[in-house]
Order: sequence, then C-alpha cells, then structure tokens
Amino acid sequence: MSDEKWFVEHFDSAGTAFGLRLKARLEAVQTEYQHIEMWDTDTFGYLMTIDGATMVTSRDNFLYHEMMSHPVLFSHPDPKRVVIIGGGDCGTLREVLRHPGVEQATQIDIDEMVTRLSEKYFPELCESNNDPRAELLFIDGVKWMRECDAGSIDVIIVDSTDPVGPAEGLFKADFFRDCHRVLRDGGIIVQQSESPLLHSVSIIRDLHVNMREAGFTSTQTLPFPQPCYPSGWWSCTMAGKGTDVTRFREKDAAAKPFETQYYTADIHRGALTLPPFMKKALS
Amino acid sequence: MSDEKWFVEHFDSAGTAFGLRLKARLEAVQTEYQHIEMWDTDTFGYLMTIDGATMVTSRDNFLYHEMMSHPVLFSHPDPKRVVIIGGGDCGTLREVLRHPGVEQATQIDIDEMVTRLSEKYFPELCESNNDPRAELLFIDGVKWMRECDAGSIDVIIVDSTDPVGPAEGLFKADFFRDCHRVLRDGGIIVQQSESPLLHSVSIIRDLHVNMREAGFTSTQTLPFPQPCYPSGWWSCTMAGKGTDVTRFREKDAAAKPFETQYYTADIHRGALTLPPFMKKALS
Repeated sequence: MSDEKWFVEHFDSAGTAFGLRLKARLEAVQTEYQHIEMWDTDTFGYLMTIDGATMVTSRDNFLYHEMMSHPVLFSHPDPKRVVIIGGGDCGTLREVLRHPGVEQATQIDIDEMVTRLSEKYFPELCESNNDPRAELLFIDGVKWMRECDAGSIDVIIVDSTDPVGPAEGLFKADFFRDCHRVLRDGGIIVQQSESPLLHSVSIIRDLHVNMREAGFTSTQTLPFPQPCYPSGWWSCTMAGKGTDVTRFREKDAAAKPFETQYYTADIHRGALTLPPFMKKALS
Repeated sequence: MSDEKWFVEHFDSAGTAFGLRLKARLEAVQTEYQHIEMWDTDTFGYLMTIDGATMVTSRDNFLYHEMMSHPVLFSHPDPKRVVIIGGGDCGTLREVLRHPGVEQATQIDIDEMVTRLSEKYFPELCESNNDPRAELLFIDGVKWMRECDAGSIDVIIVDSTDPVGPAEGLFKADFFRDCHRVLRDGGIIVQQSESPLLHSVSIIRDLHVNMREAGFTSTQTLPFPQPCYPSGWWSCTMAGKGTDVTRFREKDAAAKPFETQYYTADIHRGALTLPPFMKKALS
C-alpha cells in the first residue's frame, strides 16, 4: 500500500483528499495551457488529471455528464442550438447529441490535447464527435462568447474546471452577461458548481448572485453524486433568461428515446429538491 | 502537504482512498474489540476511526444519521419500540428520539468506549442519551437479537461497520431471520448498505437476497451522499415484515415537529427513485 501505487489528490482548500489505486501512468503531456496526465487505475478504468487535479474517470463520469446535459435540455422547451464551454473530453457533447431535436452542438475547449487524449482513452465519450451536428473548436470560449451574435443560442453548458486559474472567469458576472446576451429569450445556461457540502455558502451562493446580476431571472442548483470530485457530492446550477428553471418537460424526460445510467425524470425531480442546509445557505 | 498531516484511508477492496487534513491525533485506545482513534481535522471537525477506518466526523455525520433513522421511522405507521444495533456514537439514537411517538429506543453497541469517546468529542450526538426513553446496552447485538422475544419490536436499525470482521454477521440471512422473528407484523429493519457505485452488484444485491430469504416481503435501497465513506455516496436498505417499504407517511414527514439538515419528505421520495444502473443491478 505504498504511495507510489496511488494517485492521491489533496484538495487544499477543502482539506480533503481523494485517491485511486494505480496500475500505471500512461501519458504526461505539457501543453501551452496545462499539464495533462493519463493513468490506468485498478478499479476506475482510465483517469485523466490536469495540473494534478482529477478530471474524469471511465467508471464514474456518467454521473457528471448526464447531469450536466439532460436536466438543462429537458428544462428548455425546444433546444436546437447548444454551446459547450470546456468539456474537451467530449462526454457532455455525446449526451447533448442524444437529443434528436438538437440541430447543432458546438464544443469550445481551449486545449485540443484534452480531446485528442480522450479520443484515445475514452473512445466511448467521443463516439458522437463525427456526428454532422457536432462542431469542435479549440479556442478561447470566453472570447468566443463575447463575440457571438446576440439571441443565437438556446442552451449554454459551462463544463469547466474549478473556479481557480484559467476557469475563474467562467464563474463571474461579466461572462454571464455575455451568455445572457447570446441566449435567445427562454434560453438556459448551466454551470458545474462544485460541492453542496463544501461550497454551498461560498462558490454556489456567489454563482447565484453573479447569474442574477447578469440578468438571469431564475436560478436553481441540482446536487448529484460524483465520487472522484471533492466530497464525492457535486452540483450543477442552471439559470434561465426569462424562464423558470425549476420546471422541466417531465413527460418528454420520462419518454426519452435514449438510455441513461443515472438520469431519469424522477432523478431530475428529486435533484430539484434541496436539503434544508442548502436552502438555508442559498436563501 | 506531507503525509504526516493527513489521515488517508486506503479502501483496499474499492481501490479508492479518502483523506482529511489533520491538526492532531487526540486519542488512541485499544479496547477488547478494536483500536479507536480520535483526530482533530482542519475542515471536518473531529474524526473517529476504528481499526484505521473512518467512522464519523463532526461535519458530515448528519447525512448518515438522518438517513438511517427518519426514512425507516416514517415508513412505519406508528413506531413505538426501536432497537439500534451498533451506533455507539449515539447519533442515530438522537435522531430516533426526535420522533415523539417513540416510547423506547435501545442502542446495543458491543464497545462502550465508542460511546464514551463520542460523549467527549461529539456531545451534540449524545444530547439525548439521558432521555428517559433511551436505553444504552454494551453487549453483543447478535446474541441479544437471538434471545429477544418474538413480535416485540417495531423498527430495527443496523448501524454497523462494513461487512468484514466483527460486523460480517449483521449482513447474513441468519441474523435477518432473528430480526424478522423479533419484529411485530408490519415491522421494518434498515441496514446501512455501502456504496451505490461500488457495491450495487455485490453487497447491496446480496443484502436484498438475504433479507428476502429471511422472510421479508419488501426491500428497498435508498442512496444518499456521505463524503467521508468510500466514493462519497452511501445507502441504506430497508426490509418490511409484511409491509411495503416503498411507501411512507408523506404528510407526517412533511409536517415533522423537528428540524433536519438533510432529510425532508421530498428527499425521502427522491431517495426511493433508483438510477437505472442500480435498478438493473438489483433486478
């Protein structure tokens, strides 16, 4: 049980650590933006880390990817044009393209190497990359959003890393103001929003404030399990442009024409119910 | 960030690890049964470990204790006599005694030192130990159950450690047969049942089989978050003696005369909804 055989990430701000037993390190690549490593683990399949932080594993990514895509898409009445900021592993893109009504899904990750490594180690997440509705861009998503036409997008999914370093701007009111402008009326944005236990009175609360400051009229956090992230409990936060994100197309979700491992209409309804300690933190 | 300042538990069978940053180790006691340590952590308050395994922390125990007590008590029509097997930290006992209808709650943990250390470091969990309805026994719970009168108990809560070593018997059909005999008609047992992600096709599935083999007619697993346990996602499994444990007193739960941090009627209803991968594993 020596430490050489484990990848252990110490989450300094949370004071918690998470680890996986390793078979081997497979890749270590320094890109213009970050240090990406690929690992083969004993029980979680492949693991991608960026700058030492756990990003995605074969075994448990379905929780995150399903919850970053299906709740927001079933909350919008008819999402046709979807933009994913970040999400270079392509798992969110795959889930988005399961919705037959989606006409275009644009994934904008600044670092192409994330996608190239994902194609190699997580081919299941990349199975829709060649879908004619998919567009993969490797540019700065914040800049793209600033320059995008007003009222041209139905759903924005911010599938980012933690709000420190490169992704910090993706949690700020300035960015959300651009997103608000770019969304059509009735459009919805969803942002990954960290741990309900660790961040309800900090990052999650600030996120709601920043989203409302940017003009969004309704905001809602949905918790879900995510073992490989700090505390094993994660969340996404939706914000609607003149639409109520606490409501969703329940019948369509219950009759969805694709399989999932975690998401169902019932799970969605359950996730809209916050425990009292979170309600208090966000009130 | 040296390892001396972290408690890191390597879950060998799961291939995962969980850690907390430490201020200090406060106690180390070898009892007749096990090695108990108390730690002061940076961000989770006090931590109790037994034989190196994380048992309870100040910060996140409310999730586990509320979900081990309120779902089962609101599933029973009128629970008067409750028995807790294990649960020496007294947190489950406290939650049980919040229900005004409970006339007697007997906690049976083999190791008195667990309760003595909990009184010292988790006084909030022990605040109902002197309730006249509370009975604390420090004896073998399996033997107690074997000798208990038939049809004398309404609810049994098995608040045990993992099904290896001393607690292994608490997951077996023999023990559940004793519990079935001891319960009144309409009685319910609940057992902590490990991680939905890691154990659905092993421990949880076996538990359902063993409970039904012992005569229980209805079984149901409820997932909930629990950061300090493997994968951060945990569960309890209920089994009813001639009663349907997928139903509960929703109105009473919604109007409960006490506050909680996690449990609500809506959370209970949500927890009854299993994700597709679990349904498949348990079908």
